[in-house]
Amino acid sequence: MRGIQHLAVAGLVAGIGLAVALAVPGAGRAAEQPGAKMLEKHKTTPGGQYQPSLDVMKEHPIEQPGSKPGVPTLTADEFQKAKQIYFERCAGCHGVLRKGATGKPLTTKITRELGYDHLKNFITYGSPAGMPNWGTSGQLSDADIDLMVRYLLNEPPVPPEFGMAEMRETWKVLVKPADRPTRKMNDLDLDNLFSVTLRDTGEVALIDGGSKKIVTIIKTGYAVHISRLSASGRYLMVIGRDAKVDMIDLWMNPPQTVAEIKVGLEARSVETSKMKGWEDRYAIAGTYWPPQFVIMDGDTLEPLKIANTRGMTVDEQAYHPEPRVAAIVASHYRPEFIVNVKETGKILLVNYQDIENLTITEIGAERFLHDGGLDSTKRYFLVAANARNTVAVIDTKTGKLAKLVREGIGQTPHPGRGANFVHPKFGPVWATSHLGDETVALIGTDPQGHPDQAWTVVQSLEGQGGGSLFVKTHPKSRNLWVDTPLNPDEGTASSVAVFDIDHLDKPYEVVPVGEMSGLSAGVRRVVQGEYNRDGSEIWFSVWNGKEQESAIVVLDDKTRKLKAVIRDKRLVTPTGKFNVFNTKNDVY
Amino acid sequence: MRGIQHLAVAGLVAGIGLAVALAVPGAGRAAEQPGAKMLEKHKTTPGGQYQPSLDVMKEHPIEQPGSKPGVPTLTADEFQKAKQIYFERCAGCHGVLRKGATGKPLTTKITRELGYDHLKNFITYGSPAGMPNWGTSGQLSDADIDLMVRYLLNEPPVPPEFGMAEMRETWKVLVKPADRPTRKMNDLDLDNLFSVTLRDTGEVALIDGGSKKIVTIIKTGYAVHISRLSASGRYLMVIGRDAKVDMIDLWMNPPQTVAEIKVGLEARSVETSKMKGWEDRYAIAGTYWPPQFVIMDGDTLEPLKIANTRGMTVDEQAYHPEPRVAAIVASHYRPEFIVNVKETGKILLVNYQDIENLTITEIGAERFLHDGGLDSTKRYFLVAANARNTVAVIDTKTGKLAKLVREGIGQTPHPGRGANFVHPKFGPVWATSHLGDETVALIGTDPQGHPDQAWTVVQSLEGQGGGSLFVKTHPKSRNLWVDTPLNPDEGTASSVAVFDIDHLDKPYEVVPVGEMSGLSAGVRRVVQGEYNRDGSEIWFSVWNGKEQESAIVVLDDKTRKLKAVIRDKRLVTPTGKFNVFNTKNDVY
Repeated sequence: MRGIQHLAVAGLVAGIGLAVALAVPGAGRAAEQPGAKMLEKHKTTPGGQYQPSLDVMKEHPIEQPGSKPGVPTLTADEFQKAKQIYFERCAGCHGVLRKGATGKPLTTKITRELGYDHLKNFITYGSPAGMPNWGTSGQLSDADIDLMVRYLLNEPPVPPEFGMAEMRETWKVLVKPADRPTRKMNDLDLDNLFSVTLRDTGEVALIDGGSKKIVTIIKTGYAVHISRLSASGRYLMVIGRDAKVDMIDLWMNPPQTVAEIKVGLEARSVETSKMKGWEDRYAIAGTYWPPQFVIMDGDTLEPLKIANTRGMTVDEQAYHPEPRVAAIVASHYRPEFIVNVKETGKILLVNYQDIENLTITEIGAERFLHDGGLDSTKRYFLVAANARNTVAVIDTKTGKLAKLVREGIGQTPHPGRGANFVHPKFGPVWATSHLGDETVALIGTDPQGHPDQAWTVVQSLEGQGGGSLFVKTHPKSRNLWVDTPLNPDEGTASSVAVFDIDHLDKPYEVVPVGEMSGLSAGVRRVVQGEYNRDGSEIWFSVWNGKEQESAIVVLDDKTRKLKAVIRDKRLVTPTGKFNVFNTKNDVY
Repeated sequence: MRGIQHLAVAGLVAGIGLAVALAVPGAGRAAEQPGAKMLEKHKTTPGGQYQPSLDVMKEHPIEQPGSKPGVPTLTADEFQKAKQIYFERCAGCHGVLRKGATGKPLTTKITRELGYDHLKNFITYGSPAGMPNWGTSGQLSDADIDLMVRYLLNEPPVPPEFGMAEMRETWKVLVKPADRPTRKMNDLDLDNLFSVTLRDTGEVALIDGGSKKIVTIIKTGYAVHISRLSASGRYLMVIGRDAKVDMIDLWMNPPQTVAEIKVGLEARSVETSKMKGWEDRYAIAGTYWPPQFVIMDGDTLEPLKIANTRGMTVDEQAYHPEPRVAAIVASHYRPEFIVNVKETGKILLVNYQDIENLTITEIGAERFLHDGGLDSTKRYFLVAANARNTVAVIDTKTGKLAKLVREGIGQTPHPGRGANFVHPKFGPVWATSHLGDETVALIGTDPQGHPDQAWTVVQSLEGQGGGSLFVKTHPKSRNLWVDTPLNPDEGTASSVAVFDIDHLDKPYEVVPVGEMSGLSAGVRRVVQGEYNRDGSEIWFSVWNGKEQESAIVVLDDKTRKLKAVIRDKRLVTPTGKFNVFNTKNDVY
């Protein structure tokens, strides 16, 4: 099945992608997607009537703005509830300040023009352009929707800032560096350990790659977005959507959290310094709110330096009040962090050699930078400006933009970190799949050996459909795996496509991973392939609702056959999985 | 006369210093300054009942915030008027967003606690801590004060942003580079030309240093804050408080404006690239609102790159929404602009080698950076964090903070660009006088030859009193001139002190420049000594109210005697004077 262009998933995939509410109809395809299908899809969405569950702003009260004549008022209680719903359901796409990003802007100028009835219908029924049908899906009640409409007719409140004082209040060193072991105290094969996000419980599971057993479950922030390893591989850093960073010492027996900090109200990215000579020295976390990043001590997470990202958009040079920090990657060529600022479209090279005299090089790229990764040489960084159907390439050695790749990129690329392999004809390429269409774009990454192909789309594969979050391969594999967890078709969402890299012209094989899991209930969304240490296995999450059973399915990479299913009642809503060796070494 | 510690001058000196409302009582001195003296002083302030004169925000309407229960409301007309008064009278010290700077914060949390009556009294009578007595001085009527109190009880409106679109709308190339002369077309001795701010008419006068005649009067922005020369000396750049930049071609006959642009709503600083190989390439202007700077083409003022300065304060690392750009100086050691951000206390080294991949090094210094200049070698930059009684020194060669000089600095240093000379005992020093006390601090600037003295106050001279804005000397002079235009004592304000550099232990001589001008009316504030090309003359402005006559007095530097008085009905409120050669070459 192909050509599913309408996607509307918000607040569900934060654990692995970024929350998205996208619909990018291909030419003439909009009519293929009737409203009924949208409704159907949303009915299958995990979760029911709205229940506030994550009051991340409870401790940081937001003042209700003043009222205006002719605009409906909210009681203080209503305001608190509406603010919370907005933060959990709407902010990911429309922005905390409602300036729009992946979703449309919702400033009062716009909402008041649209009016109460229009807004109410829109929230209730959704739109083919990607707005979820919060009412007919049963996720928001009529009263909730009435509340949200009234809320949107009023000025958006500005959430509080979160500076050094607030960070230090939340910062805890649970085990001081001096009290930590001086050698590995457990028998774990750390290189083959997996850190798995348990999205809805606010935990990560550490799973042994050999035995496929859960080693331990560690309490973390909510909906851990990514796991990252310190350069030495000793420390595992995870960051929740609620901007809580946990630092886990893998040398302890069992591994446990040795430091934690909250760096803001909403976040997506954490990374550590990887340049030779700077291994394990610093960590960095970027936040959606406030729009900023913080450099922390690599041993303790002590917050050292906060830098704000508010500023001018790359194209219009207009001020944006909420330029959120998306992916952060550590450079291997300079002592720098590569910080991607979404709304302004700027890639910041943050030099950490002297954080008292912090030097930042700001590379203008394209708006709505999202996620990306390094090429196989680790010299070039490729990042999707997803709402602009563009992949920006920067040369981390020279610190300059190499190319904005636009031609041949599909609708709304979502690479994760992407997938690197050697194309039989075009040499080294980096691949991304798309949220908005069924294609997989292969971009040449070898300006020396294949200058004609470098930074152009050398081939566009056709996969199962839109709604893909991740592609995956491994240096030792000749398979290219493509998930489609957000595809509205259940069969597509619960299976993956796999291409033979040596015969990319041949049709892909569909592997029914959801079915193989043995689970029968739920949509069984199959998401994020992750290889084990030696590249012989690929692991997929089979992700169901919080109240349903989920699983991890392990396939033998060579045979593409089932090798193991990990089912455990503690494995609630597994999404992202991060193999220690591959993550530490940027093998993807 | 000495020891005048209480100063409260707002909105008057923007043409030469930055608007200040300061009072920094020395220990135990507060009692010496009765309220009556404050009243007396404000009565002498030029200007009468408030008359809106500069509606810089007229074209950029600001939306009135919503009302709150229990808070007095304003009609739309009242709001417009109050906003305008606030911008002209209050914003300089309290900040556009009322977060405070030189003045106290005026957030609604604070104003509502203080209440209507307290605020009304405060505005009417002022305070010994530096708040002007707007009521008893007659500058605001009772109705105006009532309006301002109600305005302050409401949320501050946020002025509009001013991005690339707004800048380009105001940008005009009046004479294209191709249409400009290829050689100097006039007979002027450009090196000895003076650009003189005529504050209240929104003009600069170009005055020939030899004949002392006005060559031409050029329409500019309001209250031109500084004049700067391009590295070649051909282009004169001026910036008004209303953020209008004019670029004047001194080769034309007569010199005339060839390009202009408005870069924001309120500004103080303009500069041009001076690094070898980059002469005349770029111009830069920094704004108070919006808090940002813009790099422009050096031939046309075409705006190229805007960078925002909102971010974290240096000490608390708390977000500040309005970090204004104070002094900007061009480096001679790197292709960099040195941009001083006031409220966050950060010195930005903005590298202009590749403005598409703009690199900025952020040096944490001290909050409330204001103005400063280079040492005699041009390697070190010294800048006053005036409200923190600190001078920050940076090494422009290494791009690092050299020292925060605190000990021995007086109350509220205000160096302008400072004054460099060779101290008979301590070698090269840089001097600053103070707004808040009578001292002149001499700081050693020769880490190689005089390492023990480097970046310490080697001597503190005692001048006539507080309220000094500028000290001045010249490489060929042995005089150090100290003005005191803001001193509440009229005799002190209308005279200058001059020290013999070779005998700094001897008492200063008082030169009654105001008297020498021949003017009899007005306070005759004497401000900003400026040397001619060869260092044989020093020029002082004798600055009266807009309706009164002003003058420029030229003294022979050797004899300290009157050489000439420039009086002309076109010379309305002259303040800053900039000799082309000295300004171009950073001779001060």
